[in-house]
Amino acid sequence: MKTISASKSHGGVQGVYSHGSNACACEMMFAVFTPPQARETACPVVWFLSGLTCTHANVMDKGEYRQMAAELGLIVVCPDTSPRGAEVPDEQDNWQFGSGAGFYVDATREPYARNYRMYSYVTEELPALIAREFPADMTRQAIFGHSMGGHGALTIALKNPERFKSCSAFAPIVQPSTAGWSRPAFEKYLGPSESNWRSYDTTLLIEDGKRFAGFLVDQGAADGFLKDGLQPWLLEEACSKAGIDLTLRMQEGYDHSYNFISTFMDDHLKWHAERLAK
Amino acid sequence: MKTISASKSHGGVQGVYSHGSNACACEMMFAVFTPPQARETACPVVWFLSGLTCTHANVMDKGEYRQMAAELGLIVVCPDTSPRGAEVPDEQDNWQFGSGAGFYVDATREPYARNYRMYSYVTEELPALIAREFPADMTRQAIFGHSMGGHGALTIALKNPERFKSCSAFAPIVQPSTAGWSRPAFEKYLGPSESNWRSYDTTLLIEDGKRFAGFLVDQGAADGFLKDGLQPWLLEEACSKAGIDLTLRMQEGYDHSYNFISTFMDDHLKWHAERLAK
Repeated sequence: MKTISASKSHGGVQGVYSHGSNACACEMMFAVFTPPQARETACPVVWFLSGLTCTHANVMDKGEYRQMAAELGLIVVCPDTSPRGAEVPDEQDNWQFGSGAGFYVDATREPYARNYRMYSYVTEELPALIAREFPADMTRQAIFGHSMGGHGALTIALKNPERFKSCSAFAPIVQPSTAGWSRPAFEKYLGPSESNWRSYDTTLLIEDGKRFAGFLVDQGAADGFLKDGLQPWLLEEACSKAGIDLTLRMQEGYDHSYNFISTFMDDHLKWHAERLAK
Repeated sequence: MKTISASKSHGGVQGVYSHGSNACACEMMFAVFTPPQARETACPVVWFLSGLTCTHANVMDKGEYRQMAAELGLIVVCPDTSPRGAEVPDEQDNWQFGSGAGFYVDATREPYARNYRMYSYVTEELPALIAREFPADMTRQAIFGHSMGGHGALTIALKNPERFKSCSAFAPIVQPSTAGWSRPAFEKYLGPSESNWRSYDTTLLIEDGKRFAGFLVDQGAADGFLKDGLQPWLLEEACSKAGIDLTLRMQEGYDHSYNFISTFMDDHLKWHAERLAK
């Protein structure tokens, strides 16, 4: 692991790091905020998965998570959203596929299967690195994310309920197998057979019996993607049928941007900290 | 005035605007955060002046001012740091001069005198626009800034003590007429005669009899520019001699970045709000 930068912030350290990733067969960057409490004791880990077009840097710059994470003693890990580099196949003019659009799946189709393995990267390789390199209490983990990263957080929590004590999302893509911005990507990463998409779709994972203790979801009511792509009522319906405790808050006037995320960031961190303390 | 973007944030609105500037003879952009209280009543205005290389966007993205400004009911205005555009003379490879480096002076030398009039822009033209277009109580104004913008805030407050109820700075350039990164710019904007630089130099303005009620200054002790360029002890000496109340806080471990600024942003906004309430 290489330290790209490290800067004191709210009493802790905001760092940017890189490492050679086996899962993605390329160099990967990520951001970690280490709170001041980590100088004395191992701290719980909160994963933030970002949305389409983002790197580790968007939420690091605009997410406004450090003050509350420092107060609550949370390590915040912000991975990139896809493999990157000259060797990695991409569609440069397509913001919904390739670089910045890994969708937290393990691609099975060529030429993407070698690099686009963000599910394994985020659930296996990067956690092992975090456990090794940071003062992290890996028995206490939480996960959240925005948009495509909300999809990542929900699906990963549903598939790993023993690992995560809590999960939340900002404006998540809850049914990527039907949403216009994810269907073409799923087809290229996973092939045309939609049965292979089910394990990366929150509503279908729930339909197939996966469960999680509960979700907090904030959704901007003025989000331009609300009706086409996000449709949180599909999650409401799935959770209701399955008896999953969903706190869905429609936030009047808020859009899809980091202004929305940062406004409710404290609420989410407190939600996680309460559950991580148990 | 054109609205480039407007997005709900912490109950208020973070907007980006542009207008044709007479002072700078070009189109200028700026950011304004309007707190929720402004829907009911005129709110005090806090000016944030940014540092070298910045636009209005850096502090808007990374400054973490909205939560506290919303709580305190402050309008926060973030101007650009220089004129910009194809018509504006510049030295593209020099980050300490031209675009992003207006130093809040009114240039008197050609070819810069036509555009580089950031002092007039920030003290006259933009305030008139803010008064006209926003629910602003212009009888209650405060000013702060970072680095070159700290220099701007301090000099502008000293020259307009009747207008500003408070002034603070993060890592300000306190003696630009001797600092390596500002001397060449001052010479190009104002000519070689250093007597013409005095009215844009905080320590020399104080030496020349200008006064202000008091300053809050935060300075990172791990700031790479501390000894060469910033030298806050020069301000301490000037204020001490002049009987100006200076609260200078050396912040252990903090660097020159927005991680430093955002950590102490709440303190500065509270400092201003207390004085604006009087």
